[in-house]
Amino acid sequence: MELIAETIAAIRPLDEAAMRAARERHDRLTKPRGSLGTLEELGIRLAGVAGVCPPPLPSPAAVAVFAADHGVHAQGVTPWPQEVTGQMVHNFLAGGAVVNAFARQVGAEVTVVDVGVKGELPEAPGLLARKVAHGTADMTQGPAMTAAEARRAVEVGIEIARDLVAAGHRCLLTGDMGIANTTASAALIAAFTGRAAEDVTGYGTGIDDATHARKIEVVRAALARARTEPSGEADAAGRADPLTVLAQVGGLEHAAIAGFVLGAAAHRVPVVLDGVIAGAAALVAVALAPGARDFCVAGHRSAEPGHAAALASLRLRPLVDLELRLGEGTGALLALPLVAGAVRVLHEVATFDSAGVADKDAAATDPAEGAATVPAEGTAGGAAADPADGSGGDAARNRA
Amino acid sequence: MELIAETIAAIRPLDEAAMRAARERHDRLTKPRGSLGTLEELGIRLAGVAGVCPPPLPSPAAVAVFAADHGVHAQGVTPWPQEVTGQMVHNFLAGGAVVNAFARQVGAEVTVVDVGVKGELPEAPGLLARKVAHGTADMTQGPAMTAAEARRAVEVGIEIARDLVAAGHRCLLTGDMGIANTTASAALIAAFTGRAAEDVTGYGTGIDDATHARKIEVVRAALARARTEPSGEADAAGRADPLTVLAQVGGLEHAAIAGFVLGAAAHRVPVVLDGVIAGAAALVAVALAPGARDFCVAGHRSAEPGHAAALASLRLRPLVDLELRLGEGTGALLALPLVAGAVRVLHEVATFDSAGVADKDAAATDPAEGAATVPAEGTAGGAAADPADGSGGDAARNRA
Repeated sequence: MELIAETIAAIRPLDEAAMRAARERHDRLTKPRGSLGTLEELGIRLAGVAGVCPPPLPSPAAVAVFAADHGVHAQGVTPWPQEVTGQMVHNFLAGGAVVNAFARQVGAEVTVVDVGVKGELPEAPGLLARKVAHGTADMTQGPAMTAAEARRAVEVGIEIARDLVAAGHRCLLTGDMGIANTTASAALIAAFTGRAAEDVTGYGTGIDDATHARKIEVVRAALARARTEPSGEADAAGRADPLTVLAQVGGLEHAAIAGFVLGAAAHRVPVVLDGVIAGAAALVAVALAPGARDFCVAGHRSAEPGHAAALASLRLRPLVDLELRLGEGTGALLALPLVAGAVRVLHEVATFDSAGVADKDAAATDPAEGAATVPAEGTAGGAAADPADGSGGDAARNRA
Repeated sequence: MELIAETIAAIRPLDEAAMRAARERHDRLTKPRGSLGTLEELGIRLAGVAGVCPPPLPSPAAVAVFAADHGVHAQGVTPWPQEVTGQMVHNFLAGGAVVNAFARQVGAEVTVVDVGVKGELPEAPGLLARKVAHGTADMTQGPAMTAAEARRAVEVGIEIARDLVAAGHRCLLTGDMGIANTTASAALIAAFTGRAAEDVTGYGTGIDDATHARKIEVVRAALARARTEPSGEADAAGRADPLTVLAQVGGLEHAAIAGFVLGAAAHRVPVVLDGVIAGAAALVAVALAPGARDFCVAGHRSAEPGHAAALASLRLRPLVDLELRLGEGTGALLALPLVAGAVRVLHEVATFDSAGVADKDAAATDPAEGAATVPAEGTAGGAAADPADGSGGDAARNRA
């Protein structure tokens, strides 16, 4: 438990001074105040993450795809054969999956981590062999993982985050692969948000109504069984220890992603969450370390209903909302250029002063202009704000 | 009128064969069918735009920022001085605005077009001088433009699109700059959608409640005045000629963007629309040539209420929805990597066959597997789908 405890202890609050500097900088840039909406808030938060304004661009970035299998597959929750987990790992390594195409599009590196695929995977360049178990056990019959397995998988995620940051990455993205992992995600989300199984269990990658009804029953059964088990340490309010909940109904990739989030937060690097699997894992991370939430960026909102519940609980607004339900890290990768845009503005955009552009807010509050909110034509612009020679822009380019 | 009529006549329907090929290709790629949501539909439509599957990547891309002034500024609809239009043109040329930062982020070229800025702008590298008039007239007092001015500004947009396509650009993005142009946008949107002024008139780049109330009255007054004017040619249903409506209450940049959309459609290149100004202009373009709609991609949805009304009328779903209200082309630029991702998938992702990944849908419909929707463990994977040697992925990389 030492690495997990150390990592949690290393997570500090957002840097308020850097956020204040970013907020002030935003108000001097040549654009109406607040006109970048959500991206403005994001840029300010990322300054708080890095502890400096402007914060570093999220580049180079790396997506870690954590792959694992799920014993609950035996309950018939998906038509996909379990072998597809390993087959897709090979597809990732060969560069043929959507995560690879999107990573090439945005210039991110793909790292594939076997944290619990059933069966042996041959060694391959780019595959990090960190198998904790050959998949989880069937959570309807008993705990999905032992406490030791859950802890070890969390540690794997922490270690992967640490290594990627040490290699120079300035932004981490979560990815996942695991046939049946939306079932475990639903169980985790129900457990951590208190929502009913039927409210957070969706159609995953595509199932029929009969399978969906069975999937809801499976989630319900797993949660009922888990409640009868000794729940490890409970906190003062009687809530079960997050690692115990994770071991009862989670997946090895959920555990690893929870650790990955903790590791990113401890290293003060933003972590872009992918879809419902990442959302479920982030609930575990934030239950362990509430401060980790501030280091998370919600890449997208998937079509899976549990994801909206997880994001609401995390108080995170997704950047992309296009009814994706693929996983792998694809939604996080699509969001990366938006994250980069939010940061780049703070580096490169000229200020009203440097660009010689009249600022309506400065004009409105300038006593010399009077209290009128609607300046007469030409009063605030004109000679004082004669079009500049572009020095602001040149300076911006030199910084680029 | 010849160039406009020729351009409209050159707009052909989407290529159904290419779209069918894209749809079939999507169903063989190593991902659950439909799992890319909106991006899947977009990739299919872009195949129809280009007439080939896979369609070309949207690169190189260019954003054209059309700048113009508005006589309605005299009605006190914004606290920004009118001089800011020209000042921001200089900022664009110096590389210091948000549009420049976002364009650098996504690798797009910025072209700035003076289609109607009030006053003379000095010649500058990168500035296309296509001034049709020194801003529009005040639309509450008379038509904003003469019929000849409106036609000439539409032609400017057609010509800019033609030149950018001739220079090799495979994707065009709209941009705009014009103090008071959300007022003209609201009037256009009300006129083309039939919505009330108060439903489509927003706070623009940031105004107080008193100014907002005045802005609604100004839009209402302009529409009432325009209805008393001779309305040019009306169609069989009695609807006014779109160019006449444009001249009555539009802006020179709206006219140019309408032409830009028509030009892109005629050249079978997708055009990514920015915010409410582009939405209003696209309504003009689609009223002139309904087929132009299929060549439009809604880059984002702005915070301006009229934009949602315009997108609903155009039946376009925005890719980015982050409460931006900046204009310049910034929302279109943020969407560009999403457009590229939608296309790249069709180029690079391996098929189930080539990657050796079991396909649940192929398995479920294979008579040898029986009618079970939930294959027993190992039936559909296993020997027949032994993890491949990565040839599918290698092929994908070779195509990249």
